[in-house]
Amino acid sequence: MTAVYNFAAGPAMIACDVMQQAREEFIDWQGTGMSVMEMSHRGKDFMGIAAQANADLRMLLNIPDNYKILWLQGGASTQFGMLPLNLLGARKDADYFCTGAWSKKAIKEAQRFCQVNIVASGESENFTTIPESNTWQFNPDAAYVHYTSNETIQGVQFADMPDVGDKFLVADMSSDILSRRIDVARYGVIYAGAQKNIGPSGLSIVIIREDLLGNVTPNMPSMYDYKIHADNDSMYNTPPTFAWYMAGLTFQWLLKEGGIEAIAQRNQHKAEKLYAAIDMSGFYRNPVAKPYRSRMNVPFILADAKLDARFLEEAARVGLLNLKGHRSVGGMRASIYNAMPEAGIDALIEFMQTFEKEHA
Amino acid sequence: MTAVYNFAAGPAMIACDVMQQAREEFIDWQGTGMSVMEMSHRGKDFMGIAAQANADLRMLLNIPDNYKILWLQGGASTQFGMLPLNLLGARKDADYFCTGAWSKKAIKEAQRFCQVNIVASGESENFTTIPESNTWQFNPDAAYVHYTSNETIQGVQFADMPDVGDKFLVADMSSDILSRRIDVARYGVIYAGAQKNIGPSGLSIVIIREDLLGNVTPNMPSMYDYKIHADNDSMYNTPPTFAWYMAGLTFQWLLKEGGIEAIAQRNQHKAEKLYAAIDMSGFYRNPVAKPYRSRMNVPFILADAKLDARFLEEAARVGLLNLKGHRSVGGMRASIYNAMPEAGIDALIEFMQTFEKEHA
Repeated sequence: MTAVYNFAAGPAMIACDVMQQAREEFIDWQGTGMSVMEMSHRGKDFMGIAAQANADLRMLLNIPDNYKILWLQGGASTQFGMLPLNLLGARKDADYFCTGAWSKKAIKEAQRFCQVNIVASGESENFTTIPESNTWQFNPDAAYVHYTSNETIQGVQFADMPDVGDKFLVADMSSDILSRRIDVARYGVIYAGAQKNIGPSGLSIVIIREDLLGNVTPNMPSMYDYKIHADNDSMYNTPPTFAWYMAGLTFQWLLKEGGIEAIAQRNQHKAEKLYAAIDMSGFYRNPVAKPYRSRMNVPFILADAKLDARFLEEAARVGLLNLKGHRSVGGMRASIYNAMPEAGIDALIEFMQTFEKEHA
Repeated sequence: MTAVYNFAAGPAMIACDVMQQAREEFIDWQGTGMSVMEMSHRGKDFMGIAAQANADLRMLLNIPDNYKILWLQGGASTQFGMLPLNLLGARKDADYFCTGAWSKKAIKEAQRFCQVNIVASGESENFTTIPESNTWQFNPDAAYVHYTSNETIQGVQFADMPDVGDKFLVADMSSDILSRRIDVARYGVIYAGAQKNIGPSGLSIVIIREDLLGNVTPNMPSMYDYKIHADNDSMYNTPPTFAWYMAGLTFQWLLKEGGIEAIAQRNQHKAEKLYAAIDMSGFYRNPVAKPYRSRMNVPFILADAKLDARFLEEAARVGLLNLKGHRSVGGMRASIYNAMPEAGIDALIEFMQTFEKEHA
């Protein structure tokens, strides 16, 4: 095996232990003679895998009993439409924070179905910060308040959940779910595509308070009704079974590593180390205001953009992969999700320092 | 590895060669140090995998240049809604064949969006046959004609594509795509969930004539617009990358095995052998009219239903798995997709004969 550190933003690195176990049982899961991929989703083997993953996620995030976990397809992009269609009820308005590219996509899709009020926008600052809470403007008629807890492209993260009083919050946690403690009971809906902190692409997880089910807009596709999925234990249609299984392995790995508190501490440490190295250099720069810097996605630019290609090429040569920034913002980006070990951060910092010495 | 034959209806057995190759490169794909599962969908490695799978499917099915292949999520159940929403245009009517449980689901979802005319129904015969073509009733105002080429639950299959004159056909081929030659040019849309003849669950493939794109019903979720997916080469949102890769391995295996003609011949031979064994016995019975018997899903009942549990238990003991019929019809069902080798059929027949001798 080639030793590499994969800094891709998603699909992304999966914990080494998880990959090893998945490989070991890839063709013959626990003596059944079948791959998990080949199992009927309604057979007792897969039902057991699914139930265990459900229970482990519930334990990791301390999900209250009055919340359902849905295992869906179509990514966050599907959720962008499902949310208003299921949460608006008789209302016509919703509140959205606009803090980066993913917020904007969520807003654009929601606007197909409702009037969107922008609570606060970081767009005039090129999404390098989140406006202070004393500037936030809520619409009293809004059915819910939506925010993107971490912006994968801009590397901007809410340091904590926004205080929205007695309104209910809906959060896209695609790129930071399971990276730190959250208080699920303060949310109506939490959703996340799996391909960053959970497992392979093609799976999305929705955590929804039960009383929010059953209010879907009429005359929409039945696949857009959360209640149908909830009533069928996410098996209204065939779920993405292998991704569900991989998610379950990741949950077990997280529990073994000490759960959310342990991983959160490690994430904080990893991020601080990398930002410190960037800030101390005169060559690299992260544009995000310090209180909102993401612990998951660290974008940075080089003093001379003409060196970008060379940086990427030399990094790849020493096994530091996928450091190219998103095409919409340029520069570099190191995605350092739960699965990235501290050794990967160390290797990256060492490479960056060497590169700086040679080219600054 | 335990030697078993897995007769599950889907998710189902994947060709042994495919599973072996996927395991070999599971953690380190071609020296990249990454699993395919960990690759960015926009990186050159995955883009290459995706393009190759596309090209191989095009070659296998001889797909004309004016058809797009879409790699989507949400299974056939999502397609049941996408189809009318994209194909109706200004029309309000569609023609549907009703030949089993999956046709019924497709019809039920379509009825959310249009008036469905039933061209022919096998329901009064308990879906054991398909009405003769001289009884078919088309609606001249229908935007399209939909049929389910193979009914996975009832084991009823159209022997050939239905003749619908100059109307355009839409086919759910979830459970028999790639099992026999089809003339793609005679279809408007062909769609299939992957989890039978293609690969893991969580992927669906849509083959659509380009001129049908761009007519989606307004005010629907953007994920339901084929054109958006086509314009973005199925990467409008993160696709199910690992399933796409597994599909590609399956296509390469099919090409190596001699392509569609070779696999079709093998499928016919396998099915004939199993039906002959059932028909010759006085103990097992398949209820489907001979011209419409499925080559993919072979349901059968025992002379005494009280022996069902024992049959399943003894079969499992000799490695013949997942033979239980769908809960809605009972009895047994052997799903014998492309990946099931003839040796699996032989083993099943031998077991059935032994069981009959002991219990008849």
